[in-house]
Amino acid sequence: MKKKYLFTPGPTEVPEEVLIEISRPPIHHRKKDFINIFEEAVSNLKRVFFSTGEVFIFASSGTGAMEAAVQNFTEEGDKALYIESGKFGERWGELCEVFGVGATALKYEWGNAVDTGEVEEKLRENKDIKAVFATLVETSTGTLHPIEELAKVVSKSNAILIVDAVSGLGSDRIMVDKWGIDVVVSGSQKALMTPPGLSFICINEKAKYVYEKNSRKSYYWNIKKESKAMAKGQTSYTPSVNLITGLLQALKMINTEGIENTFARHEVLAKAAREGIKAMGLELFSSNPANGLTAVNIPSSDRIGGVFVKHIEEKYGVVFAGGQEKLKSKIFRIAHMGYYDKLDVIKALGVVEMALKELGVMDVLGKGVGAAMEVFTNNAKGDENNSFNF
Amino acid sequence: MKKKYLFTPGPTEVPEEVLIEISRPPIHHRKKDFINIFEEAVSNLKRVFFSTGEVFIFASSGTGAMEAAVQNFTEEGDKALYIESGKFGERWGELCEVFGVGATALKYEWGNAVDTGEVEEKLRENKDIKAVFATLVETSTGTLHPIEELAKVVSKSNAILIVDAVSGLGSDRIMVDKWGIDVVVSGSQKALMTPPGLSFICINEKAKYVYEKNSRKSYYWNIKKESKAMAKGQTSYTPSVNLITGLLQALKMINTEGIENTFARHEVLAKAAREGIKAMGLELFSSNPANGLTAVNIPSSDRIGGVFVKHIEEKYGVVFAGGQEKLKSKIFRIAHMGYYDKLDVIKALGVVEMALKELGVMDVLGKGVGAAMEVFTNNAKGDENNSFNF
Repeated sequence: MKKKYLFTPGPTEVPEEVLIEISRPPIHHRKKDFINIFEEAVSNLKRVFFSTGEVFIFASSGTGAMEAAVQNFTEEGDKALYIESGKFGERWGELCEVFGVGATALKYEWGNAVDTGEVEEKLRENKDIKAVFATLVETSTGTLHPIEELAKVVSKSNAILIVDAVSGLGSDRIMVDKWGIDVVVSGSQKALMTPPGLSFICINEKAKYVYEKNSRKSYYWNIKKESKAMAKGQTSYTPSVNLITGLLQALKMINTEGIENTFARHEVLAKAAREGIKAMGLELFSSNPANGLTAVNIPSSDRIGGVFVKHIEEKYGVVFAGGQEKLKSKIFRIAHMGYYDKLDVIKALGVVEMALKELGVMDVLGKGVGAAMEVFTNNAKGDENNSFNF
Repeated sequence: MKKKYLFTPGPTEVPEEVLIEISRPPIHHRKKDFINIFEEAVSNLKRVFFSTGEVFIFASSGTGAMEAAVQNFTEEGDKALYIESGKFGERWGELCEVFGVGATALKYEWGNAVDTGEVEEKLRENKDIKAVFATLVETSTGTLHPIEELAKVVSKSNAILIVDAVSGLGSDRIMVDKWGIDVVVSGSQKALMTPPGLSFICINEKAKYVYEKNSRKSYYWNIKKESKAMAKGQTSYTPSVNLITGLLQALKMINTEGIENTFARHEVLAKAAREGIKAMGLELFSSNPANGLTAVNIPSSDRIGGVFVKHIEEKYGVVFAGGQEKLKSKIFRIAHMGYYDKLDVIKALGVVEMALKELGVMDVLGKGVGAAMEVFTNNAKGDENNSFNF
């Protein structure tokens, strides 16, 4: 008997209530029953995006919505800027290249956030830049980018701001209308507590005209067409009925918790994870860690980097993500975005402590877990008058 | 209490065993457990395609795989031919237009199949045609196209044959290798008994070189990239983990039945549906009906065309599809592709008979159902020495 615990930054743990909804017999997507579910899911998604604009749902993984953003919001030959400090920032660059957009990278060492002053300067020097592509949470490094500040800078220019919030939406705050972001893409399988297979694109009122006058031809990712279908509560092509039904349940759970409480929960979990890691004497990889996941340098990585994540998975059934590409065997990542609570963080820190001892790196049993509990109990104390007590 | 019965040509009824698999907690897509599931699903899909070539799975609806086919197997400016005798044939034309392919339609009255002699002639006259786009089962009309014959004709030319078998794969025979079809696309939500959200593309050995030397840039639908990921049992972007787990279960059920028995079952169900409809005095819409669904002209359609399908849904919980576009209120479609048995056909015919009486069209109670049962019992008799007895 081995219980399994998923701490990867997508897919993440899915609540039983969502899995039950997903397992219902499919209903026909052009009939009233499903239209009601679809419209309710879209209106709940708008609340999570903090937007009164348009939201569309694609049957695809998150990368599909990124492709849709590039295809519908740029023209061939446009100039663009993209923030690159991890694998998902790079993806914007790759997409721009495929779609004939002349995109310049503003590069930062992996693990660092964008310096918005440099974006401001670039935009001032290059008034022909049409779009800035950014990432809310760079999953590959666990880094949060300052999107609110970035939106202020971009809004003073001629460019539109397009943000990949596949990772982050629902764990790290993003407010489309208030912050003045033009386009945000996301996916189902991270903080939105639903299995992979759905992607979303949220378009601010002001950005609607950009796709409306876009001259590219498109088919599967055609937002003009989706907008027409949406007027009837439908999608252009067969939607992923079961996953959307599950998504609605997940969004209802976020509503019940209250999105502000959801953010507060992630803040506390992330703080506890960080304090726990530091109390073990380990180092955080990111200089600006997100609330959705915690990336940690593997100690003695020359010796144990290749086996650390595997050891934990095999021995304890706990699945962490390792590092990607140049970070392979250098870091491990603990996701706590979505359906995670205090005891999940304690579990995660506990297996890290045991593995470090078992692999002969260090004996810090109880130190990290203790520090996390310190955060939780202090937080509970400070929260006496707060209805939020997860 | 109202029981619900889904007889729409996608989504279709999904076996409980598949729904249970879909409802399992997601597992991480880069880990061994999922790689095993994924590789087994792909190898089972190859059996259904009757192909030893490559099969790729996308997180998308079937249209996504159609887009992938056009993007990876044509070049901008190519000449192509597409068979158009329904909504899904039209879709090939729309996709070709978006991707800059000069595609000529070979049009047939909706409900009719392609005349392969005319294709042969066109290909002889236009040796620069690079691709022929066809449809196995035209869902909008319930028509089966003669793909085996078509493949013979196309194989004598310079063109490749690309077939949309979203509808039909698993209910109406298609054999990629033996018939010499180059590319076939399909989806999860029809005869493969899985909810919508997955699409597939199967590429014959001989067609591999076409996408390999394709010069278009692509990202989400990049088959070269998928082929590299497949070598490690993976997809380029996060796969729809839960749906793939469900798909594997559905494919195992097809294996257990035996694909030849699956075809035989669909043949008998379709025959019974047709005989039942004719015994009521109704007319089949298609001149070459598929085994996956039966399209029927609504009698007295001027009077009851707009309410027929709705009446049956509201009164009996049975969901048929009506006609699309120019066939709206003219036909109804009974799907029996995938998880359907004899009693399902009897249910479907029964509600048609009751609705016809209730709407004041005719009283044929028992006639259609009786004719269908005649087919079933004759078939059982003739099948005494056949292990297939569903």
